[in-house]
Amino acid sequence: MKELVSTLTGRRYPFDRIEEFTEDGESLEVRFGDVANASIRTGKHLWERFGDFLPFSQIDADISLGEGQTALLPADRKLAEYTGLDRLWLKNETQNPTWSFKDRGSLTCIAMAREMDEQVTATISTGNMGNSIAAYAAKADLRAIVFVPGFTPKEKIMAMGIHGATVLKVHGPDYSVIKKQILDLAGELSLRVVSGNGPIRVEGYKMIAFELLEQMEGEVPDYIAIPTSACGHTRGVFKGYRELKEAGLIHKIPKMIVVQARNNSPIVSAIKQGKKQVIPFSGFHTVAEAITTGNPMGGDEIIDRAARHGWLAEDVTEEEILDSQRRLAASGYFVEPATATSLGAIRKLRASGKLDREARVVMMLTGSGLKDTSVLGHHRADVRELELPEVAQEVRSLLGR
Amino acid sequence: MKELVSTLTGRRYPFDRIEEFTEDGESLEVRFGDVANASIRTGKHLWERFGDFLPFSQIDADISLGEGQTALLPADRKLAEYTGLDRLWLKNETQNPTWSFKDRGSLTCIAMAREMDEQVTATISTGNMGNSIAAYAAKADLRAIVFVPGFTPKEKIMAMGIHGATVLKVHGPDYSVIKKQILDLAGELSLRVVSGNGPIRVEGYKMIAFELLEQMEGEVPDYIAIPTSACGHTRGVFKGYRELKEAGLIHKIPKMIVVQARNNSPIVSAIKQGKKQVIPFSGFHTVAEAITTGNPMGGDEIIDRAARHGWLAEDVTEEEILDSQRRLAASGYFVEPATATSLGAIRKLRASGKLDREARVVMMLTGSGLKDTSVLGHHRADVRELELPEVAQEVRSLLGR
Repeated sequence: MKELVSTLTGRRYPFDRIEEFTEDGESLEVRFGDVANASIRTGKHLWERFGDFLPFSQIDADISLGEGQTALLPADRKLAEYTGLDRLWLKNETQNPTWSFKDRGSLTCIAMAREMDEQVTATISTGNMGNSIAAYAAKADLRAIVFVPGFTPKEKIMAMGIHGATVLKVHGPDYSVIKKQILDLAGELSLRVVSGNGPIRVEGYKMIAFELLEQMEGEVPDYIAIPTSACGHTRGVFKGYRELKEAGLIHKIPKMIVVQARNNSPIVSAIKQGKKQVIPFSGFHTVAEAITTGNPMGGDEIIDRAARHGWLAEDVTEEEILDSQRRLAASGYFVEPATATSLGAIRKLRASGKLDREARVVMMLTGSGLKDTSVLGHHRADVRELELPEVAQEVRSLLGR
Repeated sequence: MKELVSTLTGRRYPFDRIEEFTEDGESLEVRFGDVANASIRTGKHLWERFGDFLPFSQIDADISLGEGQTALLPADRKLAEYTGLDRLWLKNETQNPTWSFKDRGSLTCIAMAREMDEQVTATISTGNMGNSIAAYAAKADLRAIVFVPGFTPKEKIMAMGIHGATVLKVHGPDYSVIKKQILDLAGELSLRVVSGNGPIRVEGYKMIAFELLEQMEGEVPDYIAIPTSACGHTRGVFKGYRELKEAGLIHKIPKMIVVQARNNSPIVSAIKQGKKQVIPFSGFHTVAEAITTGNPMGGDEIIDRAARHGWLAEDVTEEEILDSQRRLAASGYFVEPATATSLGAIRKLRASGKLDREARVVMMLTGSGLKDTSVLGHHRADVRELELPEVAQEVRSLLGR
């Protein structure tokens, strides 16, 4: 018996519900079977080994683009010193097929479309989500419809369009108004429009917890830092660990670190101010373009859980974001600004004593720096313009010879 | 006893030779120990399991950015039908840390720098190679110098610069003249300038063969298709399999499929015309920007091996490259144009009967489509501009409701 359950009120809904939230805008999550008796099986794919924890009758291998199995690496000396943490790991989700963590959720969204015999999958996105859904729909021979706001740059649209997606570029007064109308329409037409915080995506993000369990050989980190926008990523990683604990496979659940840009911190501000509801942001600007949901549906759940489980929350300024992006690059990781927010956040949490030096922290590197090269203009680089005859002297001087 | 050996004449050179080619421009390759007695060991990392096949006393885990373990996936029905091949696999090297296969060679280049106690690593590049070296040097705390030609776009330079590399932008009459002078200078100053066909990079690309052996559970494909420019990738994969055979671990070596853009096909043209030497190209243009070596040093070795081992060679037109890029994207893989060349090439080789329908072929997906978004202007996408009130009707019509 599979069903969807409101994470705030416990109200129950059918598993095949098209809308991803309750009528009151509460998050939904999948409940099914008897997780307490779930165990880890053998199998080539992560979704096979942890199949007991997933709500699908099966996931066909042909819908996969090879997501997951991304590197988990210890921070180098520079990042350890910068953050003040001795046991920091980086989980490099930019190594996914469309170079962001979104691919894990797209796998389960497409599995759901197969399970429901749907021929079309749709999303509203300006970036990573749209690329990922377009690619996965192409792989599974589904039609993809991606709604994008009128201001979306042509390059981003083409990167979705090349996969064969139909891109509907909607001009209108305000992005949130556009979103609302599209979701109303989708409900009317029984068109599933997947969002970053849908219950089926969350089932995909859960697999990060399963993969970390394997990579850390059963060890559970104390904290996992996640740049938070629509909230699905944070929810998924937490739910994965929670279910592992329910199954008796681990004894504790890591605490999440909710990270946002200060210029758009609807959840972090609420947690810091002890509020129970999201504090909506609008009209802001941040270089962290991938985390710009100003009034996230389901954000209240995160605030609630943060209070109950002792999660941490931190925001970072524009300057801190760019500095963090540069520092990660100086250690070999070229990530998008939204990803870099975590580094600055954990440094501040350590400095204020909220994180111990010995805390075991995993930082999710959510998306590739190639996704947004316009931000590179904010950085300085050691570039030297030379005529050919000047090269010898310059190199000698660089080498000190 | 480790040494470098000319692949054409067998002349021997010391292992620590700074120059990557012989005085006569022949390729060098590493020979060492007793490969016949090498075996596969246990270990977390590929380089540990296949350490017997590598010339380093050790590879420190801290220089790795998590390269390799990229997905190997069977082609979907669309790609199988397009190529006419029933047993085609795609090896997705865009899942490497800097999103191209180059990272495997950068790992070994940095391992060599460590072994030789060098503090600086340098390369000449406009793209993937420069990004990769800059990132790996950053990880290992080495200084990186990247020489780029004057015409290199600012975005590409910044993507190297953000890692902390010193970028020397050299203005001069001709890229090949610039290259030659830099290499002469490097020899003089004992500065190791790594190129795409250096013997140490080849040791990194070898690991693709090792990884394929594991992923295919001991099976060896009949052919491996590789977009070819500097030749190191092709050499490396072949050398890996050759050494596995020398060690008695496999019984046959796959044949390479050498692929180039027709507008720049110095090696493929030579092979097709039965010539023994590279036919230099200059002043050409191709959308396949990552494979634009017009007169590759060491190209003669590839031509020689192709003749001796029955390798295949094919070139593709600009139109075929773009069509292949679109078709790969329509199956979920957004690759750069240079990568797409392989798809068109194997289709033509099948159509002309040079490949059997049953041939087991692996296609290397060398680099991410995000590396060159300027080419997206060549593609059409289904983009529809709508005002908000028009959305409902458009979606109804798309869904046929």
